[in-house]
Amino acid sequence: MNFSSDNVAGVSPEIMAALAAANAGSQPSYGADSISERVERRLAEIFERDVAVFPVATGTAANALALATVAPPWGVVYCHAEAHIAVDECGAPEFYAGGARVVGLAAPHGKIAPADLAPLLPGGKGVVHHMQPAAISLTQASEAGTVYRADEIAAIGELARSHGLALHVDGARFANAVAHLGCAPADITWRAGVDILSFGATKNGAAAAEAVIFFDKAKAADFAFRRKRGGHLFSKMRFLSAQLDAYLADDLWLRNARHANAAATRLADGLARIPGLRLRHAVEANEIFVEMPDALIDSLFAKGFHFYRWDGPRGNCVRLVTAFDTALADVDAFLAVARRANTSGGH
Amino acid sequence: MNFSSDNVAGVSPEIMAALAAANAGSQPSYGADSISERVERRLAEIFERDVAVFPVATGTAANALALATVAPPWGVVYCHAEAHIAVDECGAPEFYAGGARVVGLAAPHGKIAPADLAPLLPGGKGVVHHMQPAAISLTQASEAGTVYRADEIAAIGELARSHGLALHVDGARFANAVAHLGCAPADITWRAGVDILSFGATKNGAAAAEAVIFFDKAKAADFAFRRKRGGHLFSKMRFLSAQLDAYLADDLWLRNARHANAAATRLADGLARIPGLRLRHAVEANEIFVEMPDALIDSLFAKGFHFYRWDGPRGNCVRLVTAFDTALADVDAFLAVARRANTSGGH
Amino acid sequence: MNFSSDNVAGVSPEIMAALAAANAGSQPSYGADSISERVERRLAEIFERDVAVFPVATGTAANALALATVAPPWGVVYCHAEAHIAVDECGAPEFYAGGARVVGLAAPHGKIAPADLAPLLPGGKGVVHHMQPAAISLTQASEAGTVYRADEIAAIGELARSHGLALHVDGARFANAVAHLGCAPADITWRAGVDILSFGATKNGAAAAEAVIFFDKAKAADFAFRRKRGGHLFSKMRFLSAQLDAYLADDLWLRNARHANAAATRLADGLARIPGLRLRHAVEANEIFVEMPDALIDSLFAKGFHFYRWDGPRGNCVRLVTAFDTALADVDAFLAVARRANTSGGH
Amino acid sequence: MNFSSDNVAGVSPEIMAALAAANAGSQPSYGADSISERVERRLAEIFERDVAVFPVATGTAANALALATVAPPWGVVYCHAEAHIAVDECGAPEFYAGGARVVGLAAPHGKIAPADLAPLLPGGKGVVHHMQPAAISLTQASEAGTVYRADEIAAIGELARSHGLALHVDGARFANAVAHLGCAPADITWRAGVDILSFGATKNGAAAAEAVIFFDKAKAADFAFRRKRGGHLFSKMRFLSAQLDAYLADDLWLRNARHANAAATRLADGLARIPGLRLRHAVEANEIFVEMPDALIDSLFAKGFHFYRWDGPRGNCVRLVTAFDTALADVDAFLAVARRANTSGGH
Repeated sequence: MNFSSDNVAGVSPEIMAALAAANAGSQPSYGADSISERVERRLAEIFERDVAVFPVATGTAANALALATVAPPWGVVYCHAEAHIAVDECGAPEFYAGGARVVGLAAPHGKIAPADLAPLLPGGKGVVHHMQPAAISLTQASEAGTVYRADEIAAIGELARSHGLALHVDGARFANAVAHLGCAPADITWRAGVDILSFGATKNGAAAAEAVIFFDKAKAADFAFRRKRGGHLFSKMRFLSAQLDAYLADDLWLRNARHANAAATRLADGLARIPGLRLRHAVEANEIFVEMPDALIDSLFAKGFHFYRWDGPRGNCVRLVTAFDTALADVDAFLAVARRANTSGGH
Repeated sequence: MNFSSDNVAGVSPEIMAALAAANAGSQPSYGADSISERVERRLAEIFERDVAVFPVATGTAANALALATVAPPWGVVYCHAEAHIAVDECGAPEFYAGGARVVGLAAPHGKIAPADLAPLLPGGKGVVHHMQPAAISLTQASEAGTVYRADEIAAIGELARSHGLALHVDGARFANAVAHLGCAPADITWRAGVDILSFGATKNGAAAAEAVIFFDKAKAADFAFRRKRGGHLFSKMRFLSAQLDAYLADDLWLRNARHANAAATRLADGLARIPGLRLRHAVEANEIFVEMPDALIDSLFAKGFHFYRWDGPRGNCVRLVTAFDTALADVDAFLAVARRANTSGGH
Repeated sequence: MNFSSDNVAGVSPEIMAALAAANAGSQPSYGADSISERVERRLAEIFERDVAVFPVATGTAANALALATVAPPWGVVYCHAEAHIAVDECGAPEFYAGGARVVGLAAPHGKIAPADLAPLLPGGKGVVHHMQPAAISLTQASEAGTVYRADEIAAIGELARSHGLALHVDGARFANAVAHLGCAPADITWRAGVDILSFGATKNGAAAAEAVIFFDKAKAADFAFRRKRGGHLFSKMRFLSAQLDAYLADDLWLRNARHANAAATRLADGLARIPGLRLRHAVEANEIFVEMPDALIDSLFAKGFHFYRWDGPRGNCVRLVTAFDTALADVDAFLAVARRANTSGGH
Repeated sequence: MNFSSDNVAGVSPEIMAALAAANAGSQPSYGADSISERVERRLAEIFERDVAVFPVATGTAANALALATVAPPWGVVYCHAEAHIAVDECGAPEFYAGGARVVGLAAPHGKIAPADLAPLLPGGKGVVHHMQPAAISLTQASEAGTVYRADEIAAIGELARSHGLALHVDGARFANAVAHLGCAPADITWRAGVDILSFGATKNGAAAAEAVIFFDKAKAADFAFRRKRGGHLFSKMRFLSAQLDAYLADDLWLRNARHANAAATRLADGLARIPGLRLRHAVEANEIFVEMPDALIDSLFAKGFHFYRWDGPRGNCVRLVTAFDTALADVDAFLAVARRANTSGGH
């Protein structure tokens, strides 16, 4: 009954089994093992092109290291105002990029559009007094639980290209977006102008595993040095790669995401039918933002449900997050309490 | 038959089992879980004092983050010329400390002594033109496979204190040192003047787990921000802590180290008896540096043994590393080949 | 006829004379000279308290070095959206502070108020995921040519103190503010809660000289290392200090500022009386922002006046800056053209 | 009677006059002035090729900014162990290059040779665990008062090129070297493989002026951003450029250097003839290192001569530095005291 985050969940059984299986015998260290090689090949298939792949253990590391390769110390990275890189990474992108600037843009429903970016560009390009526009970072699925469509990304990709900016996607919940769209992963990445993807697994069933994927291998030249220097190169890399290997096998990544999305949809649909409750954003992935009366929030906490109020300690919007292992019974139990508490008036 | 490094080994069965066990149910993220709390308590018992504990996944992260808390950007960290922080971390300490300097001192058998440090101190202390002495870092066990005794560390601790420097220990192989000395962990850390310890587990049976331990909790104030900012705070922290938890339970850390040390001793003793071979350093932990004829090195490679030449591609010193899972049969097989090849004259 | 900036002006004759006078004989280097000592004493008198003074050559260096002493790499510095540190220093504060973040707040007339800051504080203080509020920086006089009154600064000082933030003032035009207010310099600095002042001279008659002033000398401990490390410690410091020495002697700093302010007021008053023109902000220092028809702007350019359009290449707001050496005849000439062009209808 | 450093001297009268002359009227700021343009043209003539020129105020800024353009954060810069960048800049190169490493090599007489560098190269090039060799920095004239000949530099230039390293020259005393060699400036820079030169003026008659010169303009692309971001772009640039302009006019730079060199030679020749004194290095520029009895050192101090003991507070080697304005009478007075004190036996 924990809807507080997808990182309170554990690990998919398939991934735990892969860790155990990877433990047999000696393996070359630092990524020269056979499992790491297989992961790179598998991602090339999934993305339908040659890619450079660098596993790391956290999303913050993936994002910050990726952005550091495209933003010079005097560069500006544009993103949504609520992006993880802007508010939840304690300045990791600034740190890794040697003092670059992350500029968060307010925009509805967690998604930025060319119209949000265009007024800021070219942004004093070439003028030595100003930090220089360097990259755009999109969060897919967004922090509002919405999903960028391929055409939306392509429009931003076009803008990025025309101004010489790199396009990065923070895909901590990339699987949820692909599951929602039912598209080819390539359609919402390199075919739409994306240069680098932080391909997340941790929130969707891994213990601690993400992959930074460069769609142009030539641009990945320095990444290995940055990763090592950041302390993110694992000696026993096989245990990082094994998680990704199992995650990609038999579409586990998509199956997990479909489950989480379905649980979120079921929960959202149920909540939407309860008078007095209002969904703040469309529910397209595994996050629900719903406004509800204080009394109902208190009732749900009292029943043992875990989740966060989103607008501060007394705000009446709550965030509910589902995961690969969310029990539908928990969803239904939550809805039952919500319906009952609401009926009883919340007085 | 792999003696190339202790990081080609897998994971102790107890640690793999702990990962599986940690997977049950939801747990608060980012270290608020019950396992992480237990690890901190357990380390306090082992070190006989209150400590601040921060798990991270790599030794490079542990060292660099630890040093950044004691060396300002204009600080100097003194260590042995072959220290991991000096030669094997691609400048991670410099990166995390904002441009500090790591100065490696040549000294025999991998260990520095007060006599190596004293001529460099006070080192322009207070003179604005010079980088400022900030910390000393010892590697325990050393990169030469030797071990600092408590009195040796205390002498350096006294020097550090008298000059206002912090004392850090890179304990990637700390267990091997404790196993060799048979001392209390406190004796070779805070009782000898050590401020911060990178307490290693990865090389000794974990998948990817180290703990940065502050013996003065007040000095750890900023560490949590540095760790997060470096991308080293795990969301599903329980899977990092579970490794440490099992590592500390039932003295697994010492049992593993004793096995690795014993295997190294057996190998070293055997090699020492072979005419024409020479051990470069005393074998006190799990690393052996032995000079042998080229023909013998080639024979061993031909037989499928893995290890590194240490003095460059044609040097005649090789490094052999044992681990918690080194089979004694492999040790004996290695010795048998060595004896035979040597007898036959390297033909 | 150049109203484009106060940095197109030359140097006050008194300051040029001081440079020549300082050239006699040998002097100890790096600030141990007698002139540097006199500057520190003189500033202590002017500010009515003991201060630590560090001359540097540029305002960007002064601001960035000052902020680096109060903002950790994970710190946030709040300022007005148009502050020099936010838009005109190519990220120097981020660089010197090791990746800190500068957050510009939109607010009318170039001045921020407690109401702008309060909603952002405490700002996740102590929560490891978020960058930590560290400092507030005010620009005095502001980039809009307005001036913070003592009570306005004191209110922000109180807010800063209550949240544990440092208060910095970018005083590139500090003299203009003091000249406008007719107050004691202490009233708008340390008595109002200001911790550090970038005391400008370059824009007001020096060649290249600013002084970073710490009102609490204890907080200046690291500054000398940061300055040297940034390459901002002059070997022949006497030539930096001599500029400040002359600037402070006989109230030259205030006399220069009064002249620039008076010229700005004269120009603003004349412009305000011309139909169709509108002053955007109160004119309290030496900058005027005035909206005027395109045709008038073109006429003025055609007559050889230099100034900038402020809202982009086709915006109809222009910025006019006066300086210590602005000829009143130039002011009157500008007004004459403006009146005539306006009367003739802008055809 | 001050032989302590060339930075205790004042400014050449020609340069002071140029500052006064530059003060007439308005000038565009930030280097768009006519004087700055003239300096770039003049340096192109002197170096016989198109160059990119960036004036800054200190040698530390020049060196650190220059090296940051060629050394990535994980790069290594090799230099002599006594190089200014290694020991006298408080880590400025490390700061500007984002945590790069400066490695000082011990070598006789202040000069490094290919034989010192070769064993360190390729230095783990391409191996992610090791910081990567990036640049070599030579000091011309060296910190020992010796001068690299064209062929010596060319040999290092060849080594640099073969390993893909950049070659930088710290020319704080470049004029003294050219004056000594009587060569074309191009012969000891780009014709010998030098990529970037810190062209010093401060020690040789300017107040605070150096020029970073790129011999390949394409490699200077980012420099302007780095300079601005470091706070080293002067708004009233004309006063920086005017110093360089006068310095280059009528060979003032060479005339000043010839005087300083001649004074040093006269002093060295005199000292060499005094029994019991020993010159430590050849005197090829304006620095003399001479070993003399303690009693003589004390006598000279007692007579009011200023200079430094070089091997610590009780070492018997002293450094004597001459400058563009050293009076030959002071040289002769020094020699007279030395001869007399020595004759009288140092009792």
